[in-house]
Amino acid sequence: MRELRSSSFWRAILAEFLGSLLYTLLGLGASLRWAPGPHGVLGSALAFGLAQATLVQALGHVSGGHINPAITLAFLLASQLSLPRALGYLLAQLLGALAGAGVLYGVTPAAVRGTLGLSALHPSVGPGQGTVVELLLTAQFILCVFASFDDRHDGRPGSAALPIGFSLTLGHLFGIPYTGAGMNPARSFAPAVITRNFANHWVFWAGPLLGAALAALLYELALCPRARSMAERLAVLRGEPPAAAPPPEPPAEPLELKTQGL
Amino acid sequence: MRELRSSSFWRAILAEFLGSLLYTLLGLGASLRWAPGPHGVLGSALAFGLAQATLVQALGHVSGGHINPAITLAFLLASQLSLPRALGYLLAQLLGALAGAGVLYGVTPAAVRGTLGLSALHPSVGPGQGTVVELLLTAQFILCVFASFDDRHDGRPGSAALPIGFSLTLGHLFGIPYTGAGMNPARSFAPAVITRNFANHWVFWAGPLLGAALAALLYELALCPRARSMAERLAVLRGEPPAAAPPPEPPAEPLELKTQGL
Amino acid sequence: MRELRSSSFWRAILAEFLGSLLYTLLGLGASLRWAPGPHGVLGSALAFGLAQATLVQALGHVSGGHINPAITLAFLLASQLSLPRALGYLLAQLLGALAGAGVLYGVTPAAVRGTLGLSALHPSVGPGQGTVVELLLTAQFILCVFASFDDRHDGRPGSAALPIGFSLTLGHLFGIPYTGAGMNPARSFAPAVITRNFANHWVFWAGPLLGAALAALLYELALCPRARSMAERLAVLRGEPPAAAPPPEPPAEPLELKTQGL
Amino acid sequence: MRELRSSSFWRAILAEFLGSLLYTLLGLGASLRWAPGPHGVLGSALAFGLAQATLVQALGHVSGGHINPAITLAFLLASQLSLPRALGYLLAQLLGALAGAGVLYGVTPAAVRGTLGLSALHPSVGPGQGTVVELLLTAQFILCVFASFDDRHDGRPGSAALPIGFSLTLGHLFGIPYTGAGMNPARSFAPAVITRNFANHWVFWAGPLLGAALAALLYELALCPRARSMAERLAVLRGEPPAAAPPPEPPAEPLELKTQGL
Repeated sequence: MRELRSSSFWRAILAEFLGSLLYTLLGLGASLRWAPGPHGVLGSALAFGLAQATLVQALGHVSGGHINPAITLAFLLASQLSLPRALGYLLAQLLGALAGAGVLYGVTPAAVRGTLGLSALHPSVGPGQGTVVELLLTAQFILCVFASFDDRHDGRPGSAALPIGFSLTLGHLFGIPYTGAGMNPARSFAPAVITRNFANHWVFWAGPLLGAALAALLYELALCPRARSMAERLAVLRGEPPAAAPPPEPPAEPLELKTQGL
Repeated sequence: MRELRSSSFWRAILAEFLGSLLYTLLGLGASLRWAPGPHGVLGSALAFGLAQATLVQALGHVSGGHINPAITLAFLLASQLSLPRALGYLLAQLLGALAGAGVLYGVTPAAVRGTLGLSALHPSVGPGQGTVVELLLTAQFILCVFASFDDRHDGRPGSAALPIGFSLTLGHLFGIPYTGAGMNPARSFAPAVITRNFANHWVFWAGPLLGAALAALLYELALCPRARSMAERLAVLRGEPPAAAPPPEPPAEPLELKTQGL
Repeated sequence: MRELRSSSFWRAILAEFLGSLLYTLLGLGASLRWAPGPHGVLGSALAFGLAQATLVQALGHVSGGHINPAITLAFLLASQLSLPRALGYLLAQLLGALAGAGVLYGVTPAAVRGTLGLSALHPSVGPGQGTVVELLLTAQFILCVFASFDDRHDGRPGSAALPIGFSLTLGHLFGIPYTGAGMNPARSFAPAVITRNFANHWVFWAGPLLGAALAALLYELALCPRARSMAERLAVLRGEPPAAAPPPEPPAEPLELKTQGL
Repeated sequence: MRELRSSSFWRAILAEFLGSLLYTLLGLGASLRWAPGPHGVLGSALAFGLAQATLVQALGHVSGGHINPAITLAFLLASQLSLPRALGYLLAQLLGALAGAGVLYGVTPAAVRGTLGLSALHPSVGPGQGTVVELLLTAQFILCVFASFDDRHDGRPGSAALPIGFSLTLGHLFGIPYTGAGMNPARSFAPAVITRNFANHWVFWAGPLLGAALAALLYELALCPRARSMAERLAVLRGEPPAAAPPPEPPAEPLELKTQGL
């Protein structure tokens, strides 16, 4: 476990904890209702998206700015993250989200707390439908994340933060009426623990994780396949350093703009 | 048909199918009305624009991220896309949009489905007026797409995704009250098939396609003319590889910022 | 008048005409009221800003994407544009805006046209106050445009389009209740001509043009002074080509991020 | 005090004054209520964020575009700003904010002025809760600013302006119902002076400044530590020029995207 002794590992864990705390606090808090009247989907959708954008901008160079177990699973399945790092991220995300929801509980007047932004199905939406919705919303989000961080692409954190954040906003614009738009199991887990309400809670794990897995496989196997041997993939998963002087990995086909035809 | 045997062709077709599915699903879904009251144009306009932005970011390096027959037609007319690829894209876009609208039908409570976001003229807007509106909205969108992907320009998918998406949002902010803002024949086709309502449906093909053709010709012939021989253009349309070592194509005039004046 | 014989001049004039047509059409159109109820400032403010962003993205490399006499005046005062080009731009902007408002009149149901988005003072806001508001809103916009296009800076049209557009949105969020937020004399001129309503119309020329002049002088003389001789400045204004092999102009002081302190 | 004799110092002071004037004027003004009815958090949150984005874009290369004592304190604590410059910025920010609020008072009808956007606690939110909210909102904002301007990162003002602005919008989406979302002591100070209302005013200094200090220490000590000697840090704080030919400072560990895993 050489990785656990590196300071970059623990800085990344701290970043995931802080990021998940802030994401959950700000997203759930901006979804509270302070006055009666129709609920504004727009403000809540923007808040979740801008929180992700801000945290990718602020922490992307430290940990990747996942703050979401679905993103961590997708990078693990694509052999772009070691298993110890993925487990550390998951723990940091869950604890960070709990801390964020706890802080929100503390600073919010009791009359406003409601269900603290709990992810919940619309009464006319069944758990199967809800799972499909969460799966699809997360899949489009993961495709955007993968392309933005693709090292064969010119995506950089600087230009990645806003597209990634707005992809999450998009998912919330669609999903809030259906399921509350979880799209992040840690964000859905925290208010469920605090309000002790786990009705249909599995939907908010199964949907995003299945969507993340589907998107990761689609991207890595079909849309932008990457030529790597099984040994190379296993080395990444174990957190081993790359072999000395690996030959530069040639992309299967050059990744150019295909609009220029041909 | 050498192109049909390349894996990059089929990856692009898959990207167009998936992209059109997600665009139609997310855009139409975010336009549904879950409660009575005034219809929010803003959320719907943002959803369509952010869907295009997300998919250009996610799929731009695979297929160009067209997900819209009007964009495909514009690139075809500008001799930047082969005819087989254009036909493949069109088919993938129509099937993807149908699949997206079908998924939406499946996950949405019956009471909320309404017309599934069908593109329709306002009662006081005639089909001629509607066609002009669709034409103009699509023309500004295509100009933005062309400039963002111009290889003589420094536009890259990373920085192109948001401007392209927001240009679509702009079109929806204007067009939703007039025509529902189609701006994409595949997106308009899918709910028409599912609800079996083809009233004035031709408007949503004629307007965007004419607008795309007008913008492509304006851009390529007047605003930013490109010096290419007819033989070169035909070779691209046929999907032939470029001739060995073509001389680097000199732009008619250097494309610099003209604000610096002369 | 060598400049008038260059094709780049006429392509820029065409771009300014088309851009002003689309800006006026889309901005005014998205401000119309199709239903009674409170007027949404947000949709209108976003539409004007996204129209400017789209057109800077689409036309910035052709003409600079001014589509606004205030921007043209600012670049003229900063000796970054020739006088013939400035006059050509102004004419194209006014004709384009008239054409855009005319198209809007044609495609809009009579009951919805209202004053076609005429710029007008709030009843409690005097013309002096209105002029100050227009001046300040335009000044912040011009500062943003100047910095985004500063050739000593790394601003490029690709990354300039959205900040410039959002600066215009900001001006509208503030200014719509005060003056309707003109910020562009051509945009204010067109509905005044069509509705034959020139009440306080001078405010929408004086405010933006004074604000543009103030911002151009502040930027060029105080914030980011540029070392150029009077002869060089006059040559630009006359549209003369730069003298053979001019010595590279040294910036007064290097333009680095000053956050790094000393 | 060699620094006080440099023109770049005084240009930066002017930029901070003008920027704070415009930020306070535009942000407070877009928060006024011209009609009865529910208050729109969205427009106000967007206005403050887009004002920060515009001014970072316009003035970032002159002064860093702080326009906020909390940002100035954070850069001072991180030894990235000299003490004379920090004091000059603070004075310019307070005077600029007062001037902006004064202009707003002058151009706004008396019936609309209200409390001029005074930062105030919700009746059910105590001053301790308010301080925690301001602290957390400002901390996420400062993390985003630090990462965007990190010279070991590829952040540039061009791409930094929008993420920084949207991070401020995010804070307002959350914070407006709790505290009015100060996040900037100068912005909160100005309307307090003009309306002579200093109830709980300390909250809007203590919260943002503590949040800025916390974020600066977290970023510089834990998330992205920087190897610099105490002597180097003191030299920056005193405004001394760097020693002749300092050895290039090696980052503790390379700052690469960590999503690619170990």
